[in-house]
Amino acid sequence: MEGLDFNITIVGLGLIGGSYAMALKELKPKNLWAVDVDENALNTALNMKIIDKGYKEAEIPLKKSDIVIIALYPKLTLDFVKKHIKDFKSGAIITDVGGIKEEIVNNINSFIPEDLDFIGGHPMAGREKQGLNYASKDIFKGASYIFTPVERNKEENIQLLERIVKSMGCKATVRIDPKHHDEVIAFTSHLPHILAVALVNSDLLGVETSLFAAGSFKDSTRVAQINADLWTELLTSNRDNIINKLEIFEENIKILKNAIAENNCSLIKSEFEKAHLRRKEIV
Amino acid sequence: MEGLDFNITIVGLGLIGGSYAMALKELKPKNLWAVDVDENALNTALNMKIIDKGYKEAEIPLKKSDIVIIALYPKLTLDFVKKHIKDFKSGAIITDVGGIKEEIVNNINSFIPEDLDFIGGHPMAGREKQGLNYASKDIFKGASYIFTPVERNKEENIQLLERIVKSMGCKATVRIDPKHHDEVIAFTSHLPHILAVALVNSDLLGVETSLFAAGSFKDSTRVAQINADLWTELLTSNRDNIINKLEIFEENIKILKNAIAENNCSLIKSEFEKAHLRRKEIV
Repeated sequence: MEGLDFNITIVGLGLIGGSYAMALKELKPKNLWAVDVDENALNTALNMKIIDKGYKEAEIPLKKSDIVIIALYPKLTLDFVKKHIKDFKSGAIITDVGGIKEEIVNNINSFIPEDLDFIGGHPMAGREKQGLNYASKDIFKGASYIFTPVERNKEENIQLLERIVKSMGCKATVRIDPKHHDEVIAFTSHLPHILAVALVNSDLLGVETSLFAAGSFKDSTRVAQINADLWTELLTSNRDNIINKLEIFEENIKILKNAIAENNCSLIKSEFEKAHLRRKEIV
Repeated sequence: MEGLDFNITIVGLGLIGGSYAMALKELKPKNLWAVDVDENALNTALNMKIIDKGYKEAEIPLKKSDIVIIALYPKLTLDFVKKHIKDFKSGAIITDVGGIKEEIVNNINSFIPEDLDFIGGHPMAGREKQGLNYASKDIFKGASYIFTPVERNKEENIQLLERIVKSMGCKATVRIDPKHHDEVIAFTSHLPHILAVALVNSDLLGVETSLFAAGSFKDSTRVAQINADLWTELLTSNRDNIINKLEIFEENIKILKNAIAENNCSLIKSEFEKAHLRRKEIV
């Protein structure tokens, strides 16, 4: 990307914030600052040369930042924007990275002044580990990046963020309204996490499971090594969508369970063939 | 492995049989033969130099083979052993690679003559693709390999198979009785496949799912690109165990669903923390 001539502040140097810093640094922004309550994280990031300067207090960098990327849990993101609403530079683009969007986008847009632009974002990237130590610029490589713009967002600002994340390695950007985002993500992200947790918690075997586990079990339970705090917040903030998707899933389990119980081979096979074809299309 | 001074025949050059040929060839057995009804597969394997000779008719190689590895679907394995029971060399070790064991081990042992040793085997290795084209000696690397010996099997023969699969790259071998195998595998293998299929078939989003899918969805649905024929046979042959494991899983889904519906954050969190700790132990 040519000419990232902006001051950028990343708020929160966890897995995503740290990865963002690594990927953005390579794009040579005018200044790349970070805000974190944890001085160790700031020092580590400085030593890794992935930020130009770190701040425990947000006011100083915010006042000069053209772009602010808030990589905190959703509720903390809202608190941060509220607390610092007077500290942002006029014209600043503010984005977040949280896994739910409707509530936060609506809430922030209800009080944000005219001259600031909050554009919800959600990178389809992550890991089952947390913290700066597991950060990597590669988590964006090949991932898609969702933006949830609303009417008041400036088209040029959305496009700037889209160009930036593509330069960071994202394979695609996609726009969807915040409410629809939460419904889709209940299925593509929240549901697989719930299934992984339920599957691991169903282990009553009393044997050394890993000796009897091939790729299918390992892959489908990878994300069960979950960040309990973050995911409790995400799931309870997307309750209705998740319950709805869980019920659809339970219906599909029932179809297969009954077909197995009744030895209905043609139904099992047709369900498998349907899944095979659909899954093949998902890269 | 030193001195694999045996004639070995692989029956069936699919994904597993082909991978077996690749891995065994490196151990330099006296002769490595293959049997397949598909002449193309035999010719391909010959051209790849992963077998010494291919046969469409099994009699000739079986009569001289010290070790026979049957890499067919379970029911075909049983048919093959029955059909060729008089063709095996006296003293031969016969093993299979199927995903269910109780029925086949009991059945074969009910009619096999004294001088033959059928030892059930199940490599915890596979892919969501099928056929020789996707075979690779690397599928055994780091995998564990389950054997389901019974009383009549000779200890030295079991140990020979264990040494061979370790030399092929398996990280561990494990012994378990055939009935217990099927119960454990219902959980570690059959259940994840059913969940993957049910999850993919629950996709009623009407959007391009892959744009909204991160690793969690992709990983947990990878095996939904399933071999419908094989898996219909596996699941219906392990009905009671699978229904039992599915019901335990459904209970765990219900716990999480109710906790989310009731906004019971402490219960969600404790279920997540339990899963996190357990999953961490599974390498």
